[in-house]
Amino acid sequence: MPTGKLQVVPLGGLGEFGMNCMAIRWADDIIVIDAGLMFPEAELLGVDIVVPDIAYLIENRDHVRGIILTHGHEDHIGALPYILSDLNVPVYGTEFTLAYVEGKLEEHGLLDDVVLNEIQAGERFKIGPFTVNPIQVTHSLVDCVALAIHTPIGVIIHTGDFKVDPTPTDNRLFDLHSFAEYGKEGVLALFQDSTNVERRGYTPSERAVRARFQEIFARAERRLFISCFSSSIHRIKLAIDEAFEAGRKVSLVGRSMMESTEIAQDLGYIEIPEGVLIHPSQIRDFPPEKVCVLISGTQGEPMSALSRAAVDNHKHARIQPGDTVVLSSRIIPGNEKAIYRVVDHLFRRDAHVIYDDGSQPPVHVSGHASQEELKLIINLVKPRYFIPIHGEYRQLKLHAELAGAMHGSVGQVMMIESGDVLEFDEMGARKAGRIAIGRICIDSNSMGDVVEDLVIKDRRHLSEDGIVLPIIAINKLTGRVESTPEIVMRGFAASTNEDGFLEQARTTVMNTLEASSDEEKGDYGMIKEKIRQDLKRFIVKNTSRRPLIMPVILEI
Amino acid sequence: MPTGKLQVVPLGGLGEFGMNCMAIRWADDIIVIDAGLMFPEAELLGVDIVVPDIAYLIENRDHVRGIILTHGHEDHIGALPYILSDLNVPVYGTEFTLAYVEGKLEEHGLLDDVVLNEIQAGERFKIGPFTVNPIQVTHSLVDCVALAIHTPIGVIIHTGDFKVDPTPTDNRLFDLHSFAEYGKEGVLALFQDSTNVERRGYTPSERAVRARFQEIFARAERRLFISCFSSSIHRIKLAIDEAFEAGRKVSLVGRSMMESTEIAQDLGYIEIPEGVLIHPSQIRDFPPEKVCVLISGTQGEPMSALSRAAVDNHKHARIQPGDTVVLSSRIIPGNEKAIYRVVDHLFRRDAHVIYDDGSQPPVHVSGHASQEELKLIINLVKPRYFIPIHGEYRQLKLHAELAGAMHGSVGQVMMIESGDVLEFDEMGARKAGRIAIGRICIDSNSMGDVVEDLVIKDRRHLSEDGIVLPIIAINKLTGRVESTPEIVMRGFAASTNEDGFLEQARTTVMNTLEASSDEEKGDYGMIKEKIRQDLKRFIVKNTSRRPLIMPVILEI
Repeated sequence: MPTGKLQVVPLGGLGEFGMNCMAIRWADDIIVIDAGLMFPEAELLGVDIVVPDIAYLIENRDHVRGIILTHGHEDHIGALPYILSDLNVPVYGTEFTLAYVEGKLEEHGLLDDVVLNEIQAGERFKIGPFTVNPIQVTHSLVDCVALAIHTPIGVIIHTGDFKVDPTPTDNRLFDLHSFAEYGKEGVLALFQDSTNVERRGYTPSERAVRARFQEIFARAERRLFISCFSSSIHRIKLAIDEAFEAGRKVSLVGRSMMESTEIAQDLGYIEIPEGVLIHPSQIRDFPPEKVCVLISGTQGEPMSALSRAAVDNHKHARIQPGDTVVLSSRIIPGNEKAIYRVVDHLFRRDAHVIYDDGSQPPVHVSGHASQEELKLIINLVKPRYFIPIHGEYRQLKLHAELAGAMHGSVGQVMMIESGDVLEFDEMGARKAGRIAIGRICIDSNSMGDVVEDLVIKDRRHLSEDGIVLPIIAINKLTGRVESTPEIVMRGFAASTNEDGFLEQARTTVMNTLEASSDEEKGDYGMIKEKIRQDLKRFIVKNTSRRPLIMPVILEI
Repeated sequence: MPTGKLQVVPLGGLGEFGMNCMAIRWADDIIVIDAGLMFPEAELLGVDIVVPDIAYLIENRDHVRGIILTHGHEDHIGALPYILSDLNVPVYGTEFTLAYVEGKLEEHGLLDDVVLNEIQAGERFKIGPFTVNPIQVTHSLVDCVALAIHTPIGVIIHTGDFKVDPTPTDNRLFDLHSFAEYGKEGVLALFQDSTNVERRGYTPSERAVRARFQEIFARAERRLFISCFSSSIHRIKLAIDEAFEAGRKVSLVGRSMMESTEIAQDLGYIEIPEGVLIHPSQIRDFPPEKVCVLISGTQGEPMSALSRAAVDNHKHARIQPGDTVVLSSRIIPGNEKAIYRVVDHLFRRDAHVIYDDGSQPPVHVSGHASQEELKLIINLVKPRYFIPIHGEYRQLKLHAELAGAMHGSVGQVMMIESGDVLEFDEMGARKAGRIAIGRICIDSNSMGDVVEDLVIKDRRHLSEDGIVLPIIAINKLTGRVESTPEIVMRGFAASTNEDGFLEQARTTVMNTLEASSDEEKGDYGMIKEKIRQDLKRFIVKNTSRRPLIMPVILEI
């Protein structure tokens, strides 16, 4: 065995949800697995996304050989544009994953500058001293891989996100055989996804949703709206297949839904028969019982297509009494109130609303492995070291306990968190110090249309960025705004106080309020987002500055 | 049948979660059922509780004969102090319910001014033209009643909150017979709790938790901390019984837990054998395996005993490696992040943490009836009119649909929301207009020790109340505060800007930060609450004013 040390350094995702990013180093060569973002805690007002601080990679910029992606979800690829603009290294990913990445890089004007290398499950490739073998796994997204990485002192396996779905809708099976073979040959370390470690048993197959969809299509007497994550390619395929069977036209509403479906179509994951797809403006031209609308916005995002349709504020997607609305998704913790607000609006429009209430067959299934699947992979791989990844502290801990009890299959369990350096050599494995890690908060345009390059790297001096708080008093009973909006500013260029700037800002907010319905004004999440966007536009136009804008609503 | 009109007017709780309050009127006599509060949506920054606007009752103050309480939960009695200070009418409730009410009124200095009438299940009483018969029901709290109200044109039944628990821990059974008898005699209208209408089947009995508790006690090798809602008398009784069986001393930590247990003891719901109860300061005097701590704070409330213990900041409740912590409660939507933050802290202290993860036997059961129980009561009562109460719009709607399908048992389903006037006469029932309703936001001292009487009745002019925003930049990596806190104020007396007030306010915030551990600073909910409290104390002391204080944290 060659002498030397293998270092594994998670830069994010271990001890927090999202922002998955891990560096693997042998001597002077570093490869990085995934570059994800996370959505901020509610306390971080005014911040849209959070990405890992890659100071460690920047310090070692001459040694970083590339970033390898396991799949195309935001918590695995979302930080790429921010990282690549600081550190331009080749990116490796499967065809589908790279299609998502291309879209992102194009938005940031980075597409021409970055080298993208397509990889394929089962086809090994070399980067520096590492040989990487992507292994096909199943997940809620398509074209996902685990990574077996051959290092000078042994093979380590990173599962990426996965579940063991025996019947994926694209018939591309989980490659159990490769895991088995590595297990037979000997694996130094297994890094496994902890997301669903709290769930007993098996996660149901994506195909389990089909029975529920069939029931829903059979019973829907008018328009059928189906909302799911735009990256849920399996689910979109299922909906389109069933719509075709039921003789319904399909319309895609919402930018992310359209783009994602287009990519999946281009790459052959979804086939839409000729004449099935209609433009949103054509929805009204067909009888209600002949239309199925796939619409984005499962999480009650204030400005999403579904949220707007729910308050009758979408040009094409209008919900009428007797329509059926399906939320084929999970409720991400923290979003309950926003989601139930949308559901309530839909009920008020006399729609039949179907959401994940625990009934069977399920209207949504998870994309992550439950306990029995986690154990299955551990049994197959039989690693010398087991390290839980992707999870908050309690999930890593529970996963460590689960693996720790599997004496025949696991040599030793190591628990590390983001920033810990895990070192392997011929003597074994140990924690060898910590590196500086952190988070970078990004205040992007929340419409998602344009992501601005305002990376707030340092808010040490608030006065540099400035903060603007529009404060509105709304009468809960009448929905009326009861005063001229107050605008509180701090650390925002003094000159802007001249020329009636404040007065104009107030007028901007008043205009936003006047252009909103009572229902929108009753939905504070939505009205705040509208105020924020309009005021931001006004301020950027008039001052070219980008202060933090935090609308505050007082109910009277 | 006498001519006249019976009006039922919900003032809160129909179309929103909490704040239950309903007026019932015949000619010049009005009785009110329940007077609850709700906890505000996150958007209402700086507001602690919300109570219904009782303008309708105030306008008719000469006609209001009394308030009848179904049980002692906050969403049914929490608004009493605010309502009674405007409208002093007699209050009717069972022994246990009144014990809670007394504590509340005493805090507000109202106890001597209010007439409290004790009622008992099965003992009818008259108020004006109404004869009220309290019917014993089971719920997560004890001594709960439904109300059968005999009016000049028929009997209406209000279920209050209930589940049909065949084996309540206090052996006081759900009085199915009374419901059955009313059903035989004929019921004009049934108003039924909608909280759990989305759940299929039956809600398990309180006793189902016993099996899990026994397992937990058998396996706990060191200290055992059990957290539940302080009003979960059944649960507290269960824990104390099991602790006694297991030879553990019991300590009560947290004000609400102590008070609630004391009331339950006084009224005979809980018996604690001599020598079992120890003071929190004695916890350290007993071997870890001989102690069971009942501790408040299941919802991750920043300053609760459990939250503080989780970051090792509680004088008596110290959590050590190997201790077991049980969260015997549900996660109230919106609280997930705060709760999981506490769970993560506990895992970091190497505690075994047991929470409701769907495993059996359950560590928590709901107090509200599921679908089969709702149908059972409808079958027994066979009302001419059915009206769903207690729920957000979707729940009322689903409950209306459930009842609407029970053709043999229900004459007609009426769906009303807060503010609607439902009118009954010899011709039937109909919606007869709306009254003005609303919400009143109250900014109480969130420590719960003192509830201040600052009722924010009208925030029309923000400048009257004023707003203070302490803004802190915290370095996520180091936990260090990276600048002097900024204090943004608006509408807060100008004179306060003199005499170094701002500087002192900054110092106050800095002192709070310096007195906090890194773990506390990493928990934004907690650090914000600490800043708010300390700054509030400083401002009240120095200015005698009570502006809205909204800490803002920027992560850098």
